[in-house]
Amino acid sequence: MKLATLRTLGTLSTGHPRDGQLIVVSADGTRYALPPATWPTMQAALDDWQAAEPALRAIDAKLRSGSIETAALDVTQLAAPLPRAYEWVDGSAFLNHVILVRKARGAEPPATMMTDPLVYQGGSSDMLAPRANIPLADSAWGLDYESEVCVVLGDTPQGTTAADAGKYVRLVMLANDCTLRNLIPNELAKGFGFFQSKPATAFSPFAVTLDELGDAWRDGRLHMRVRSTLNGERIGDCDAGPEMHFSFHDLIAHISKTRKFTAGTIVGSGTVSNEDRARGISCLAEIRMIEIIETGAAKTPFMKVGDRIQIQAVDAAGNSPFGEIDQTVVAAG
Amino acid sequence: MKLATLRTLGTLSTGHPRDGQLIVVSADGTRYALPPATWPTMQAALDDWQAAEPALRAIDAKLRSGSIETAALDVTQLAAPLPRAYEWVDGSAFLNHVILVRKARGAEPPATMMTDPLVYQGGSSDMLAPRANIPLADSAWGLDYESEVCVVLGDTPQGTTAADAGKYVRLVMLANDCTLRNLIPNELAKGFGFFQSKPATAFSPFAVTLDELGDAWRDGRLHMRVRSTLNGERIGDCDAGPEMHFSFHDLIAHISKTRKFTAGTIVGSGTVSNEDRARGISCLAEIRMIEIIETGAAKTPFMKVGDRIQIQAVDAAGNSPFGEIDQTVVAAG
Repeated sequence: MKLATLRTLGTLSTGHPRDGQLIVVSADGTRYALPPATWPTMQAALDDWQAAEPALRAIDAKLRSGSIETAALDVTQLAAPLPRAYEWVDGSAFLNHVILVRKARGAEPPATMMTDPLVYQGGSSDMLAPRANIPLADSAWGLDYESEVCVVLGDTPQGTTAADAGKYVRLVMLANDCTLRNLIPNELAKGFGFFQSKPATAFSPFAVTLDELGDAWRDGRLHMRVRSTLNGERIGDCDAGPEMHFSFHDLIAHISKTRKFTAGTIVGSGTVSNEDRARGISCLAEIRMIEIIETGAAKTPFMKVGDRIQIQAVDAAGNSPFGEIDQTVVAAG
Repeated sequence: MKLATLRTLGTLSTGHPRDGQLIVVSADGTRYALPPATWPTMQAALDDWQAAEPALRAIDAKLRSGSIETAALDVTQLAAPLPRAYEWVDGSAFLNHVILVRKARGAEPPATMMTDPLVYQGGSSDMLAPRANIPLADSAWGLDYESEVCVVLGDTPQGTTAADAGKYVRLVMLANDCTLRNLIPNELAKGFGFFQSKPATAFSPFAVTLDELGDAWRDGRLHMRVRSTLNGERIGDCDAGPEMHFSFHDLIAHISKTRKFTAGTIVGSGTVSNEDRARGISCLAEIRMIEIIETGAAKTPFMKVGDRIQIQAVDAAGNSPFGEIDQTVVAAG
């Protein structure tokens, strides 16, 4: 089942101006049907998943059999699946990324890198649509994209173990976790982690249930290629599966050690990154570090106004189940 | 005007099981009236403040004149004013606290302490009620309380200046930003800031508008004493005003440099702390550091199961406008 959120409320909509209208999307991503009015928004469905899921699956079955009225889907009219969320917790589970970006800023990888997941708490009140522009106020901030996989949780209790974590995963989607690289060093020097260096994150058009992913979802990982295209050139085609050192289950166990999480919490994988350089990169900080290692100097600039970044995941059959994030950098204000 | 959220929905309630029922509370905190059904929750009112505020003020006027039906308020039935919020951004604006707690863990204060505010992104999907127990799974984690002032924002644009920030402050309340001190060093060594070391935060019974605070709200600071009582003993009576080095306006300008914030975002002051040791302390890490400085060793233990912490703010006339946070530590699970 494939879900999305329309940002523009139509006359039949029962959604909320700030949270949009939940829709059930056809497998090919081209048509949609409205859910029952009881669950007008993605958050409402997640709040009440036990009742909402079978009702939404019934709509999905009718979509597949052609026995429900549908409308054509215009991806430019989509919001983020959750236009505002109660938590956005982002990991950094691909160790190749951790090693490269730390090297890029002259920092050591943490001593506990192999055993203790890295996560940071992200801002979640303004989640960008898949086609939203990226506002940039100052090109000196060093804007970078980061292609990531993320999951949406149901209510998750404190003390959840990795073995139990799978049952709290409701949906999978992609994120572009933009980062302002040049704001990081001073911010991390203060000891409180990222804040200004993390502007708003964008999400894929579709959030899908695990069954929709088939064998590609296993062991708490998405076994698909995540493709990044910058200004029309494919610069990354990284496998999101085997090299995700900590699975989503591990990340969920880590974050729930000292508190619980409400339905709708989003957890991210961190930048998808492979050791094989032929796979390319899922953020510019990595290619810049590779350039430094290979030639002594970074040549690839960070993103500037007018740059376009496209991100999608592709399965073995060539399907793109989450749709594509497609954003252009614009001057802020 | 004083607002609160009932966690138990009554028969007349139009609220939401997860978000509770918004209520308008009498000036003395003992009685309440329901708002118009259009704004059943605190978040709904904040989402639509331009229309909601005058309607809520009309209820407040009727409460004051005795011309509306009211019910007795049982503080144990209150949730946090926002039981789940879209963002919780906590500063550390009292430099005396920054200096003491860094000394306590053998770290230097950041070089930019006087000019660049410290903030971290907190978890916001599970905000604890003013009378909620504090679940503690392991006493070795070093549970501490932190008495803080916080504000609730309306929609706040990217690039907001300190001079403009005041107009986005909707409500003021208190927080107990519990911290697991012994989890901090390993977590900060990883470079991504706090996560497991920050369990759920509790909030005061009442969130109040600025006019309700009179002269005590000025220059983006709350000029009141914040009183902390541990197991019946008053251990802190710190002035939240003059020593707040960065005002709430400064904090808002800082956080909005690279993104905007949705209505309902909560911003905290950090632990209220005064240089004058006669004022006592608003967290145990401070008294432990003072003990180390004065006697060579910390004597005061961190909190354990059965400990009780009470936090309120008191104005010059002895009023307690936010009501009291009153929490007891219990074994988790």
